[in-house]
Amino acid sequence: MQTLLNKTNYDFKDIRELLKEDLVKVNQIISNELESEVLLINDLSSHIFSSGGKKIRPIITLISSHISSYDGNKHLPLAATVELIHTATLLHDDVIDESKMRRGEATANDLFGNKASVLVGDFLFTRAFELMVSCKSLKILKLLSRASTIIAEGEVLQLSTLNDCNTSEEKYLNVIYAKTASLFSAAAEIGPILSNKGDKEQLALRAYGKRLGIAFQLTDDALDFTDTKNMGKTAGDDFREGKLTLPVIECIKNANDEERLFWIRTMEKLEQNEKDFYHAKNLIEKYNSIEITRNKAREHANHAIEALNVFPSSKWKSALESLAIIAIQRTE
Amino acid sequence: MQTLLNKTNYDFKDIRELLKEDLVKVNQIISNELESEVLLINDLSSHIFSSGGKKIRPIITLISSHISSYDGNKHLPLAATVELIHTATLLHDDVIDESKMRRGEATANDLFGNKASVLVGDFLFTRAFELMVSCKSLKILKLLSRASTIIAEGEVLQLSTLNDCNTSEEKYLNVIYAKTASLFSAAAEIGPILSNKGDKEQLALRAYGKRLGIAFQLTDDALDFTDTKNMGKTAGDDFREGKLTLPVIECIKNANDEERLFWIRTMEKLEQNEKDFYHAKNLIEKYNSIEITRNKAREHANHAIEALNVFPSSKWKSALESLAIIAIQRTE
Repeated sequence: MQTLLNKTNYDFKDIRELLKEDLVKVNQIISNELESEVLLINDLSSHIFSSGGKKIRPIITLISSHISSYDGNKHLPLAATVELIHTATLLHDDVIDESKMRRGEATANDLFGNKASVLVGDFLFTRAFELMVSCKSLKILKLLSRASTIIAEGEVLQLSTLNDCNTSEEKYLNVIYAKTASLFSAAAEIGPILSNKGDKEQLALRAYGKRLGIAFQLTDDALDFTDTKNMGKTAGDDFREGKLTLPVIECIKNANDEERLFWIRTMEKLEQNEKDFYHAKNLIEKYNSIEITRNKAREHANHAIEALNVFPSSKWKSALESLAIIAIQRTE
Repeated sequence: MQTLLNKTNYDFKDIRELLKEDLVKVNQIISNELESEVLLINDLSSHIFSSGGKKIRPIITLISSHISSYDGNKHLPLAATVELIHTATLLHDDVIDESKMRRGEATANDLFGNKASVLVGDFLFTRAFELMVSCKSLKILKLLSRASTIIAEGEVLQLSTLNDCNTSEEKYLNVIYAKTASLFSAAAEIGPILSNKGDKEQLALRAYGKRLGIAFQLTDDALDFTDTKNMGKTAGDDFREGKLTLPVIECIKNANDEERLFWIRTMEKLEQNEKDFYHAKNLIEKYNSIEITRNKAREHANHAIEALNVFPSSKWKSALESLAIIAIQRTE
């Protein structure tokens, strides 16, 4: 905890203000990339981008470029690329998870159907690929193509842990590294690669992004068992789908026989009634699973901040430190 | 027809024999690329690649490299890349089309479910992307990333023409250019780019690939209304799904009132009974739609062959010419 409390804190609004001009340009690039003669593509992608999103991944790329004293323009299309890759995976995720709500709005699959979501997801990914190719850096292409494969592998791995009460914490951590932290990590590494900074800075930002991504996803998974009205997603989605996340894995580890049968019925067999989510939350409270999960998130956020030690103080360093705090303190 | 008859013809087996050593290496590269620690990826991709496929796209890349006197090794991973992109789109296609059979085997979506097929399709695409990045040619990356976007756009465009009896021949041709011919065209352009041949050869092979791809898809669409036991796909798939292809578009153009109502009921409303496919084939015969479609395929194949005029005679030129003939004469 000590590390977290010693820093100059920005809130998310401050960080967006710091990057205001960059973000206008990034949004413009994204919007140009979405244009297509195919109307259904425009309709679906307008829907998904109009509902906004935090844009935390492009923000990481932008700050990583500033902290690395990069003075070119490629960080802008690359920040847009990272957001396009992320959005492509969201579209496919929501189809796989059969989600109804995202960012407080109906999901694209709910409005436009699964087929359109799969195909427009493909379109966003190929557009992201074209955009990064236009930046003409083979190092960046290698970084982002590797990250994209790791994400895809992570999504399949997650599918194979679904409805499996024997999922270990290790396997769960592999999944969240792959599906979330790998892109955070690549997003953070873009700056030092663009500016030809030394290995030390590149490794530091890679570690920062990875730790931040894990902290972010652990927090997300804890929030799925928390009632917050502003969450923009449906609480309990993971539970209803039988997705084994750390709060549940912790409960199962400590469960008595009766509780174990409850988890097997609800998570493996997906035989759920109206009161089951309430009961699941009670068990999670009984075993302190939310606090355990959020404490692990806090540890990863601390490591993220420590990784930044190689950089001298600056507003950009403070911004990255603050992001780590925001990632674990958020309630939506 | 004259052009087609004046050439030295190879059959498909001869062409595979000519490229025997190359194809062994390409298969080895594909097989290496499919390896993953995630078992479900290995299982699903082994299934889809074990059932083979004609590998016509990588064959085009290999011949295009030889006819361009390319003497390096990059044509092999790039041929593998083209096949991986194609296979990724097949996996998503079969999910979208709800297909049950492909290459004489149950489809991956039928065996492993839609979710696994979507995600492993994503994995194959990101692997393809990594593999082409490893070839370190920005020109090739631009070519293949552009083609990938055009394919994705074509898939969405096709979705929006589904169940629409007003689909024009022009719109249909746009769809088949995008979803099929664009990758044939890019596959054919790889050779002259790798060997730094002049624009003349590059443009010729681009045109060849495009015309060949259109001829290939027109033939495919005609075959969906033909009973052949060896086809490896279920005849009538396009009809059952309400996919407006040229044979049907031709029929609708000439339909009387009663026939128009039949097409609207079966293709738009998807109200089909057991005898409808038989009746559809009768209408297609009445209006000569298969012959009209196959004649158009023949025209495009002729143009493909004519595009090769810039090259002197060689076994590679004969092989490309023969491919154009094979594409339109095939019965499976």
